[in-house]
Amino acid sequence: MADQPLRFAVVLSGCGVYDGAEIHEATLTLLAISRGGHVAQCYAPDIAQHHVINHLTGDEMPETRNVLIEAARIARGKIKDLAGFSADDADILIMPGGFGAAKNLSNFAVDGADCTVDDAVAAAVRAMVAAEKPVGALCIAPVILAKLFGAGELTIGQDAGVAGAIEAMGARHTPTGHAEVVIDQTRKLVTSPCYMLEATVAQIADGADATVAALVALARPGAGI
Amino acid sequence: MADQPLRFAVVLSGCGVYDGAEIHEATLTLLAISRGGHVAQCYAPDIAQHHVINHLTGDEMPETRNVLIEAARIARGKIKDLAGFSADDADILIMPGGFGAAKNLSNFAVDGADCTVDDAVAAAVRAMVAAEKPVGALCIAPVILAKLFGAGELTIGQDAGVAGAIEAMGARHTPTGHAEVVIDQTRKLVTSPCYMLEATVAQIADGADATVAALVALARPGAGI
Repeated sequence: MADQPLRFAVVLSGCGVYDGAEIHEATLTLLAISRGGHVAQCYAPDIAQHHVINHLTGDEMPETRNVLIEAARIARGKIKDLAGFSADDADILIMPGGFGAAKNLSNFAVDGADCTVDDAVAAAVRAMVAAEKPVGALCIAPVILAKLFGAGELTIGQDAGVAGAIEAMGARHTPTGHAEVVIDQTRKLVTSPCYMLEATVAQIADGADATVAALVALARPGAGI
Repeated sequence: MADQPLRFAVVLSGCGVYDGAEIHEATLTLLAISRGGHVAQCYAPDIAQHHVINHLTGDEMPETRNVLIEAARIARGKIKDLAGFSADDADILIMPGGFGAAKNLSNFAVDGADCTVDDAVAAAVRAMVAAEKPVGALCIAPVILAKLFGAGELTIGQDAGVAGAIEAMGARHTPTGHAEVVIDQTRKLVTSPCYMLEATVAQIADGADATVAALVALARPGAGI
């Protein structure tokens, strides 16, 4: 008999690589979950974006946008305020990347190793780890795990500056290539570089697939034996 | 020896299902192109969106956004103004869906069968068909092809109202299910319903894969023989 579908909480940080969630990473995470026969519920914090970037020019735009409202674009409206999240609601939590992870979910893009993490994000991730449920993070999002736990085995690919900041926060960084994952068995954390490396869309899909597969294996420790 | 990669022009209509390009359809079209070993260049018209919808509530927001600037979010900044497009620039053109196809690329959402099509969209699609190069359209985007040609074999799935409008514009509609495509051999048009049907993300990926495969077969008529 087939295993029951696992419930994924997908934590988004807006909609667009330069000021929110990276759209390909988010969509291809949802695809990997769907193709695996699992179910996804999107979440985002109900906070203002750090700023709004014109993705055509790279310039800042003189307007404000809300992280939850913009993330709803990726979720086709089916999204919940992360402040209401309980670890009882999900078997696995995953954070796609994009600058939103470093500007909205945390302020790593501004303060580096001295960053702070959004309260709702910190509570959700800590609750999952306390419940011994797996947590995944793609691209730049692993910096949030380094900050929250000050320990752990993580990867963001091969960027020396970010890797150094992860080590300064107390975690250990392992360099990786496309579709490679680093698994922290102690805390059940899975990380993969995705667009922290120059990548094709197909390589991002491979990274999302590998991360989701590793998370499923951690959530079902006996299933593969 | 492997075939040369084909050049896809991907025409976006903003960023978000309710006022722009459907994000999953757009991303999974890019994935199908990438996994097929082909190359994609995104385009969008440099025009104001019809309106801006709060994707969390469904309400209109009191602001204005530009189709090209918002579509750049899906394209990670690598996008061109559709007004500069020439049929020499691509082997295949494809339009993902989302309400943007019916609100920005055309005004079908307002005027139905009496709609008009954006000038840059009309010029690009007509140039491709005149050059005997394949054109694909997902979800609601086939209404643009019905309007431009007043003929052809098309599908938007099973919505009776939209199917009736397609027939009123002079084309013929064939009902379809997930991942099914309708091919108009005369004009080299390929259409598939995607989110015009209730669908999982995996079903959208299947629809994008089938559409891209059919377009490639039309662009390389001898390759499969």
